[in-house]
Amino acid sequence: MTILFIGLGNMGAPMARNLAKRFDVLLSDVNVDVANALAAELGSKAVDLARLPTSVDTVVLMVPSSPVVESLVLGPGRLLEQLAADSLIIDMSSAEPSSTQRLAALASQRGIAYVDAPVSGGVAKAETAELAIMVGAETSAFERARNVLGALGGSIHHVGAPGAGDVAKALNNLLSATNIAAAAETLSAAARFGIEPEAMLEVINASTGRSQASEVKFPSHVLTGTFSSGFGMDLMLKDLAIARSLTVGAGLIAPVTDAAHTSALQARELTGPSPDHTEIVRVYEHTNATPLRVRSQREQRKPQ
Amino acid sequence: MTILFIGLGNMGAPMARNLAKRFDVLLSDVNVDVANALAAELGSKAVDLARLPTSVDTVVLMVPSSPVVESLVLGPGRLLEQLAADSLIIDMSSAEPSSTQRLAALASQRGIAYVDAPVSGGVAKAETAELAIMVGAETSAFERARNVLGALGGSIHHVGAPGAGDVAKALNNLLSATNIAAAAETLSAAARFGIEPEAMLEVINASTGRSQASEVKFPSHVLTGTFSSGFGMDLMLKDLAIARSLTVGAGLIAPVTDAAHTSALQARELTGPSPDHTEIVRVYEHTNATPLRVRSQREQRKPQ
Amino acid sequence: MTILFIGLGNMGAPMARNLAKRFDVLLSDVNVDVANALAAELGSKAVDLARLPTSVDTVVLMVPSSPVVESLVLGPGRLLEQLAADSLIIDMSSAEPSSTQRLAALASQRGIAYVDAPVSGGVAKAETAELAIMVGAETSAFERARNVLGALGGSIHHVGAPGAGDVAKALNNLLSATNIAAAAETLSAAARFGIEPEAMLEVINASTGRSQASEVKFPSHVLTGTFSSGFGMDLMLKDLAIARSLTVGAGLIAPVTDAAHTSALQARELTGPSPDHTEIVRVYEHTNATPLRVRSQREQRKPQ
Amino acid sequence: MTILFIGLGNMGAPMARNLAKRFDVLLSDVNVDVANALAAELGSKAVDLARLPTSVDTVVLMVPSSPVVESLVLGPGRLLEQLAADSLIIDMSSAEPSSTQRLAALASQRGIAYVDAPVSGGVAKAETAELAIMVGAETSAFERARNVLGALGGSIHHVGAPGAGDVAKALNNLLSATNIAAAAETLSAAARFGIEPEAMLEVINASTGRSQASEVKFPSHVLTGTFSSGFGMDLMLKDLAIARSLTVGAGLIAPVTDAAHTSALQARELTGPSPDHTEIVRVYEHTNATPLRVRSQREQRKPQ
Repeated sequence: MTILFIGLGNMGAPMARNLAKRFDVLLSDVNVDVANALAAELGSKAVDLARLPTSVDTVVLMVPSSPVVESLVLGPGRLLEQLAADSLIIDMSSAEPSSTQRLAALASQRGIAYVDAPVSGGVAKAETAELAIMVGAETSAFERARNVLGALGGSIHHVGAPGAGDVAKALNNLLSATNIAAAAETLSAAARFGIEPEAMLEVINASTGRSQASEVKFPSHVLTGTFSSGFGMDLMLKDLAIARSLTVGAGLIAPVTDAAHTSALQARELTGPSPDHTEIVRVYEHTNATPLRVRSQREQRKPQ
Repeated sequence: MTILFIGLGNMGAPMARNLAKRFDVLLSDVNVDVANALAAELGSKAVDLARLPTSVDTVVLMVPSSPVVESLVLGPGRLLEQLAADSLIIDMSSAEPSSTQRLAALASQRGIAYVDAPVSGGVAKAETAELAIMVGAETSAFERARNVLGALGGSIHHVGAPGAGDVAKALNNLLSATNIAAAAETLSAAARFGIEPEAMLEVINASTGRSQASEVKFPSHVLTGTFSSGFGMDLMLKDLAIARSLTVGAGLIAPVTDAAHTSALQARELTGPSPDHTEIVRVYEHTNATPLRVRSQREQRKPQ
Repeated sequence: MTILFIGLGNMGAPMARNLAKRFDVLLSDVNVDVANALAAELGSKAVDLARLPTSVDTVVLMVPSSPVVESLVLGPGRLLEQLAADSLIIDMSSAEPSSTQRLAALASQRGIAYVDAPVSGGVAKAETAELAIMVGAETSAFERARNVLGALGGSIHHVGAPGAGDVAKALNNLLSATNIAAAAETLSAAARFGIEPEAMLEVINASTGRSQASEVKFPSHVLTGTFSSGFGMDLMLKDLAIARSLTVGAGLIAPVTDAAHTSALQARELTGPSPDHTEIVRVYEHTNATPLRVRSQREQRKPQ
Repeated sequence: MTILFIGLGNMGAPMARNLAKRFDVLLSDVNVDVANALAAELGSKAVDLARLPTSVDTVVLMVPSSPVVESLVLGPGRLLEQLAADSLIIDMSSAEPSSTQRLAALASQRGIAYVDAPVSGGVAKAETAELAIMVGAETSAFERARNVLGALGGSIHHVGAPGAGDVAKALNNLLSATNIAAAAETLSAAARFGIEPEAMLEVINASTGRSQASEVKFPSHVLTGTFSSGFGMDLMLKDLAIARSLTVGAGLIAPVTDAAHTSALQARELTGPSPDHTEIVRVYEHTNATPLRVRSQREQRKPQ
């Protein structure tokens, strides 16, 4: 098996390094210098996508968005036209389900297997090959992709047909944002009634209200005032829009997560540039006039 | 110290047993036979609230609601009139914050310390003395109550002044209900797009969407179709109404948890008698026409 | 019949003038000079509430809030103690339903009839005696009050027992705020898709989406950028809190109007001092980055 | 000018009749017998879409949905291939904005003007040529279509470029549904506090809460229990989904109208087949256990 890895950004580079430990890996990036540098580091080669080596039977994509995926896969001289039947495309980008479904159908017409496999975990988990990977694929394609994915992720979840991986990722992020907003509402009300955020959080985490938000994000990124989870607001908003377009389009009710999306959009308006997604709490800090940072942080900030 | 324990129901009886291991405990219940039976079991005595022994310096209340607490504490011949100055009242019922504040103020006028200390954890944790206890009290009163509470709970959280314990409990339950509803919305949308609830739950629990709802309640009580968390819908609705009355009255925004309360009220209308609070998911099963039980459960249920 | 009119503010003064055209009217205000001046104008007398003339058989209250009403009606030497049995109290303030119910019950015990009759229409309608009046009263009390109310209002609606007038007023305002918010959402989305607010409003007002908000408030007070409806945001928020406390306390669902209250609270945070209640639209202008003022207004404002 | 009218259903037939009073009109329907019958009535001719007479320079479409429009306009031998440059297509169906935009762009490439002109008013207004028509078109195309539209509608609103007519129609219906839901919430709460729906409606309609829903639909179609507005729930839900897909996709907040869509979807689940869109009120009747029909209707219905 020879793998072509396309997209060597913050996430893609460490993933390519991990793959190169076990497989023959060729490299490509929109920035040719980046591809050449990593090829030198790994004793590999950068390739020109216009003239794909015939040895390539597996392509892994890690690019910013569905339009980029589409431009690489479709059209004259692109992947679908160059790859042999029986090849395998694994798209690990955060893509839109409907785009993925269309690409998978077109690939299938040429005998090419298509797997969507978006990830969660950030750069840290990409480096340690402990990503959580949500996979949408036909069963046979999933079996073929398993070794490659196993070299990248700590937990691999085959959730359904092509597109299902994208759906699962977007919905998990919708739930994550909702749990943050709900915790913020609770801490905000508690603060108004004289209960310090730290004290309320302690109660929640010892009881039934606890979530990844209350156990990890609030103590580390919100109460500290650092807002440093590493997952940006705009990436979160992209996933929220994908998830809600699905529910609205399918005529499903989802009033609680609808409300969380609204709060996230409002927070985006309140913050400066490049906010962290945990800054959704600012809507509540602002409107309810109750800071959610710990007392020491609040005092330090006053003079600013 | 002699403790009078009032309210020997499902929760109160095991709590009284745990207290009797360390303290002199007298007993009282609206049902005299219940009080006498437990007194015989513990080698203790049941007392007539109209003639309180003068040895009683601490009273623990574990009764159904604020009106019952008020009828025991206030009025001619009731606790406030019979207890000596320097006594201690610990109300462990699920009470309304405004009622607690009023009672605490009246007790204070007579030199009696008043602590609200509602619990979370259910009968199982009451028996093993591992309740989570949320305490609202002046610091000196909290110090005095600590030994008693330590004999009942695994984690004790002093969150603020009298009433704050009630607030913390209601808000934690509001957050718990919201996390259930949000998870149900996500699983419901996933199911519509071909992702089985078990598979989506696996993704969530390996990622950032996880909560006590997704880790404990959905696997044990929802996907199984048993709805057997042990915490009833009507008790949950009581706490939701307390929590939202606080936020609405204080002019605080809380749109995400507002929406969860609405879903809980709608679920209550859909279910039969005595629903479990996890049945909030039925709103989504029903409206979105997507069952959230595991496949085997759904198939078993079809013939019905 | 001799009427004592208490509360001679912006609303009360013109109402007292209208009553004086038909009835014997005595006057009282927290500011004695105000009462004396109006008495001089009307050839009437200002009275000391501590020594009520025995001729007074009807009292009309037009004061800021329920606590003020309570302080005038209850307590040693106050109205309930001074008025003869068979007297009539008509409270036209914007009061809280639960307070009104309590006062009406206490009045009833002394044989005094109690009517709540809050108004809508503002100073202009107070002057022309065309107020809309929502009346909560026993039928016999309503019959007795009808002549007095008829001298003040253009439409008089007996909606139920004491307190029902307050409920009807708060709910009407909740609906009004909701219709404003919903229209703003629609105009905001239209603007994003290239439809000018004036054009969209024209469609709505020719079709099924029209409301008092779209027909009156948007053309006169929003698209003009004047925000000059004459009904302040804080008075609106007071009524919204009353209305939602009712629904939350009664376990009723009201998700659409809940969301409007949230938007109003957020708007209050965005505006400067003394906002008009129509400024609820600012939440949508701000978050959706789509002005709702007419083009000429928007251009004039740019330099500011 | 020769007009080809395609789609002779409940709406299309009376519209074609009105056009035939002023213009040369040819007819087409998926059901050839229907087209022939109407042609006989009007002294006109039914045509075969595969062989369009060259005299046709204007086509009016009144068909069920965007996919039907697309199948008529696009593809080998369809309208875009047969019509001469300088022809005019007026699509009066309820179409999706994105589909309309695509068709208009393709038409423009062939020199054909494309106008979207969805209508509101139902069969009654179609017959009397008093439809409200929302037009999306380039200004020159609008000018050309004006005479045709003038023969069909009482009010014609040019709101923007192609697609804008569809957007305006969907948003107006979203606002209409929201005003119904909001009024239902208010009447429901009023009923719980002892105010009859008729009485509350009287207050609203004399005051600031009034809307087309409260002035027309509630008195005629809801309180009577007839639910006979003539606009079906499923057509409403189609427009709500179009409208909300726009707002969600564009990252706009719209929490109040979001909540109304949720209520409409829930109502659809509660009702039997073919519900009227005014039956959105059933969600509130059901969950809040407070009927919104007038007393006489409620009593008549009890025996059922």
